[in-house]
Amino acid sequence: MKTLKKVEALKQLAFEKKHFDAFLVINEYNLGYLTGTPGATCLLIPKKGDCTLYSYGVNYDQTKAEAKDFKIELVKRNEKITDKIGPQFKTLKIKKLATDSISYDIYKQLAKALRGQARLKMQGNLMWQLRKVKDEEEQKLMRKAGEITVAGMKAAYETIRPGVTEIDVGAEIEYAMRKKGGYGTAFETIVASGIRSAYPHGGCAQREIKKGDLVVVDIGSRCTFYCSDMTRTFVAGKPTDKQKKLYDVIKLAQEKAYHAIKAKAKGKDVDQVARKVIEKAGYGENFNHGLGHGVGREIHEPPVLGPTSKDRLVAGNVVSNEPGIYIAGYGGIRIEDTVLVRKRVSEKLTDGFYSLDTAK
Amino acid sequence: MKTLKKVEALKQLAFEKKHFDAFLVINEYNLGYLTGTPGATCLLIPKKGDCTLYSYGVNYDQTKAEAKDFKIELVKRNEKITDKIGPQFKTLKIKKLATDSISYDIYKQLAKALRGQARLKMQGNLMWQLRKVKDEEEQKLMRKAGEITVAGMKAAYETIRPGVTEIDVGAEIEYAMRKKGGYGTAFETIVASGIRSAYPHGGCAQREIKKGDLVVVDIGSRCTFYCSDMTRTFVAGKPTDKQKKLYDVIKLAQEKAYHAIKAKAKGKDVDQVARKVIEKAGYGENFNHGLGHGVGREIHEPPVLGPTSKDRLVAGNVVSNEPGIYIAGYGGIRIEDTVLVRKRVSEKLTDGFYSLDTAK
Repeated sequence: MKTLKKVEALKQLAFEKKHFDAFLVINEYNLGYLTGTPGATCLLIPKKGDCTLYSYGVNYDQTKAEAKDFKIELVKRNEKITDKIGPQFKTLKIKKLATDSISYDIYKQLAKALRGQARLKMQGNLMWQLRKVKDEEEQKLMRKAGEITVAGMKAAYETIRPGVTEIDVGAEIEYAMRKKGGYGTAFETIVASGIRSAYPHGGCAQREIKKGDLVVVDIGSRCTFYCSDMTRTFVAGKPTDKQKKLYDVIKLAQEKAYHAIKAKAKGKDVDQVARKVIEKAGYGENFNHGLGHGVGREIHEPPVLGPTSKDRLVAGNVVSNEPGIYIAGYGGIRIEDTVLVRKRVSEKLTDGFYSLDTAK
Repeated sequence: MKTLKKVEALKQLAFEKKHFDAFLVINEYNLGYLTGTPGATCLLIPKKGDCTLYSYGVNYDQTKAEAKDFKIELVKRNEKITDKIGPQFKTLKIKKLATDSISYDIYKQLAKALRGQARLKMQGNLMWQLRKVKDEEEQKLMRKAGEITVAGMKAAYETIRPGVTEIDVGAEIEYAMRKKGGYGTAFETIVASGIRSAYPHGGCAQREIKKGDLVVVDIGSRCTFYCSDMTRTFVAGKPTDKQKKLYDVIKLAQEKAYHAIKAKAKGKDVDQVARKVIEKAGYGENFNHGLGHGVGREIHEPPVLGPTSKDRLVAGNVVSNEPGIYIAGYGGIRIEDTVLVRKRVSEKLTDGFYSLDTAK
């Protein structure tokens, strides 16, 4: 019945506060959030009457088994989904239809199906209002996803040494996360070494890690559909004074930002806390991204921690806290945790391994 | 210089055949295909003059290092990309702008930036015309991705037995693919056992595999950015006569379809070859999806093999061949290979393990 509670919350936002008379959910993450099952095609929520969940044959049996709270309609292979829903708009006398973020092509098809009948308005923001505040059950899953991810970081800590390739480190990380119960990676595993460590989105390559390399490890597992996100930077061998100095700047910036992450704080102010530390050390230009992003079913969600953010944190938000310094041709350092926002002291969902050292 | 060759091919399609005077590439896969690097934001290709690749600070150094053939412009954090490109439309006197598949929101922003100046038309299909025919180098990467994926299937064959969880099997598969040089999974690893094997998109769960279970293993690795896709179905223990019978139907359907996959064949005819075998055996209703899809940088691409497909195969296409039978409450069987389309005999990029048996 938990899924219906979420549908009720959406109805409240869309019909009581906004006066739409139906909401058509198309985005796959929103569908998963509201129905508890992946793979359905869309969900029509009218102000009055029953919701209908539409599913193509390929996922129909799974949808039926996993979304028991909903009336489910089979969409046949040769049926266009808009042709299938079109008559419903008439039957239900829908005049003002809201929908979530969709592609231009689907927008055009929908607008055509509604012509002369109803107005269509994009209201993806209403779904985000719900999704960005995690309930108890979601928090539990994200806590578990964090534990799984820490197990992956432990494997990185134990594996990184000169002579090992980035992909080999990736293998051990992902294996450890699966063995801890992970449902798969939340995003492409990053093990970026040497000058590649200056690329925030470097992935894993065949590159062999060299003695003295900085190695940025940015990883995340999922627990069911919920993501985690964690970064540590290690040195393969003995760190130099410069590496240590850069690391200490980022560590301080990340710690200060962590203490600033709490309910009512503004996203841009939290970013500023970390950014000031890095600027003061003379590396402001080298922190070339925002401090953090929301995490949930997707790895990048609202709210945003960054210089242009308009978000204000509330308890139940989950955000990444990830300051970094990147020097082209030299390397990069980043430390990141996933943090559950609370009223006073927020909760780190990833923790440990705050050091440049590796086990070897 | 290979990336420039691809840009030239797009120019040919967009400017010589279609008479646009610029193409704006926004889709991330299209950007990767044309520039050789991930992470750039968009690429403006004018009919006359130099291309400009736009990149935000976070990926700027990587873009500069990896896309040497292009003029690269930094987009600042507080700059809207449309504000940045807008003046270019004027300078270059662009009147007819083509762009690839984009979200409704970006479409609106772009249309606004172009108002009174140029017409905007969606032409994602032009990119697909290029991308769906793989050149020699892409074929090499996809061949390698296939080998890596077969190593994953070998691990599944060796691991599946009663008492092991689906996630544990997933762990061994993904580890084997990484150790063979895989760049990460092409899609969420599926190990769906027991009645879950009837769900074509079942993922991995904590479920313990039971004696006699059907286990559908649908996996794929990437080599750099190119995907592979392979499915086998195993029985944990001794197969029953019914399991064997269903398996033989699918095996025959898949083999027949493989021989039908060649240049000039229609996508719907190839689907029909497999579908007829399954229908004749009395399970037509249980084959609830199309026979296959194109594979490349994305796991689902054109061309399509299915009852409503309008595609005709050409040499250099890469498609999946994956008939299946799914019986709700009982289980499912699917066999899938990734196939490189050739003139006479197409090439299987995944091969082996065609049997219900496991190693244990």
